[in-house]
Amino acid sequence: MQAMRDLSKDASLLSLNTATVRKQWKLAEIIDGCVRHGFGGIGPWRDQVAELGLKESARRIKDAGLIVTGLCRGGMFTAADEAGRQAAIDDNLLAIDEAVELGARCLVMVCGGLPPGSKDLSAARSQVFDGLSAILEHARSVRMPIAIEPLHPMYAADRSVVNTLGQALDMCDQLGDGVGAVVDVYHVWWDPSLEFQIARAGRDDRILAFHVSDWLVPTRDLLLDRGMMGDGVIDLRGIREMVEEAGYDGLIEVEIFSEVWWVAEADAVVTSCLRATI
Amino acid sequence: MQAMRDLSKDASLLSLNTATVRKQWKLAEIIDGCVRHGFGGIGPWRDQVAELGLKESARRIKDAGLIVTGLCRGGMFTAADEAGRQAAIDDNLLAIDEAVELGARCLVMVCGGLPPGSKDLSAARSQVFDGLSAILEHARSVRMPIAIEPLHPMYAADRSVVNTLGQALDMCDQLGDGVGAVVDVYHVWWDPSLEFQIARAGRDDRILAFHVSDWLVPTRDLLLDRGMMGDGVIDLRGIREMVEEAGYDGLIEVEIFSEVWWVAEADAVVTSCLRATI
Repeated sequence: MQAMRDLSKDASLLSLNTATVRKQWKLAEIIDGCVRHGFGGIGPWRDQVAELGLKESARRIKDAGLIVTGLCRGGMFTAADEAGRQAAIDDNLLAIDEAVELGARCLVMVCGGLPPGSKDLSAARSQVFDGLSAILEHARSVRMPIAIEPLHPMYAADRSVVNTLGQALDMCDQLGDGVGAVVDVYHVWWDPSLEFQIARAGRDDRILAFHVSDWLVPTRDLLLDRGMMGDGVIDLRGIREMVEEAGYDGLIEVEIFSEVWWVAEADAVVTSCLRATI
Repeated sequence: MQAMRDLSKDASLLSLNTATVRKQWKLAEIIDGCVRHGFGGIGPWRDQVAELGLKESARRIKDAGLIVTGLCRGGMFTAADEAGRQAAIDDNLLAIDEAVELGARCLVMVCGGLPPGSKDLSAARSQVFDGLSAILEHARSVRMPIAIEPLHPMYAADRSVVNTLGQALDMCDQLGDGVGAVVDVYHVWWDPSLEFQIARAGRDDRILAFHVSDWLVPTRDLLLDRGMMGDGVIDLRGIREMVEEAGYDGLIEVEIFSEVWWVAEADAVVTSCLRATI
């Protein structure tokens, strides 16, 4: 058992997902903020990258010396008709190229919920699998790892029908090389099989990113009430230990969607992230 | 493959969980309402039973000819200290006796979330197991089946650390006779292993109750925004088919916690339940 990494002495092990301060700062400011506060990485969202410009974003992030821990996001493969599913595939192929341009470690996949009007989870899950299959050859050819992010079961209807790490890893097993999973504590902390599945993911070298935030009690909103690390009930240290034991040695990405933190002063949010015990 | 039961012609296959109209009616009115609308069963809550009186509740329900599909609820075994855990066990022993007095088919267990201040899910799960173990001899001696209700993962922090049907069935396997599970579509609909676990539960004769409501999109509140059957995205018919294929032939209990339906006229709520396609 190796010793856990000491985050308190090394902010460069942290990455800032840009959603965390997206209401306060544009991407250029977030890049500057990451540098100012000593973050080692950044996890940008495509809309923010598009606003600044792909090449300009890539140049600034590179100049800042930041690791792009993942580009958010591809996915959303589920659709009511064939045209919709093809449009999703086309967009994902673009996203892969954007991730390459940014030098991202992976492209994060939020796979998509039930198509409008559908109650067929099994069919939606097949659509996700087919979508991933359709983009994988291109992803492999440009060496961009595809990171399936299992989302909390409360998002099964409208965001992702991939809801457990085990389910994501089963898909990885079927898809083969070039695909892995994001372990986001917010989505997986409750899972009775978490330790087993993280160890499995490590053995197969499938852990492509590790995201942190916290689960607040009470949680007042399904989407926008994530907590700062330490403010909730997730055993962050326990899960990080599992992930590191499994061989993950990449950065730890802070991703907090919160109406509360979005109205705070951005430098204060970032400072809170750095002071939190993870 | 047997034909599914035709609910449209037989309201007596339905049971009304009293939480569905608890803001409008007291238990005596709910019993009358169930009879008036042709329900075959009722699923009362302990606080409503206590208000009317245990013996009086039992007498009225029996006179009404209603099957008590389950008494809600025992559980809440997790606590910060030994005294709290013992108090929970004592209360569950009482709940078993109340369930017997009411002639309930089972005592429904909402097992309890993380104890205050704890982030240790594994320890909380052990507390639940120990609590169930401590009451099981008494439950067996009075032939009251204990029905573990796995709750949606979004309740792991504050209501139940038992979050999947598979996890509940694993506990049943360890506990032995006299214990089973509630299949509540709201809690389990998202589960990739649902079909497998329902079949497993049926093989082992562990399905003690079947609860229905619906998952709304969007869901505006984690606790009190359940939908009327048909208003959401749950494949109710598909899940009922799994449950009936697995051998469950008991009543179908409607349990809707909803700020929306609680302000509707109670007879209209009940009529909507009866008209819904399940």
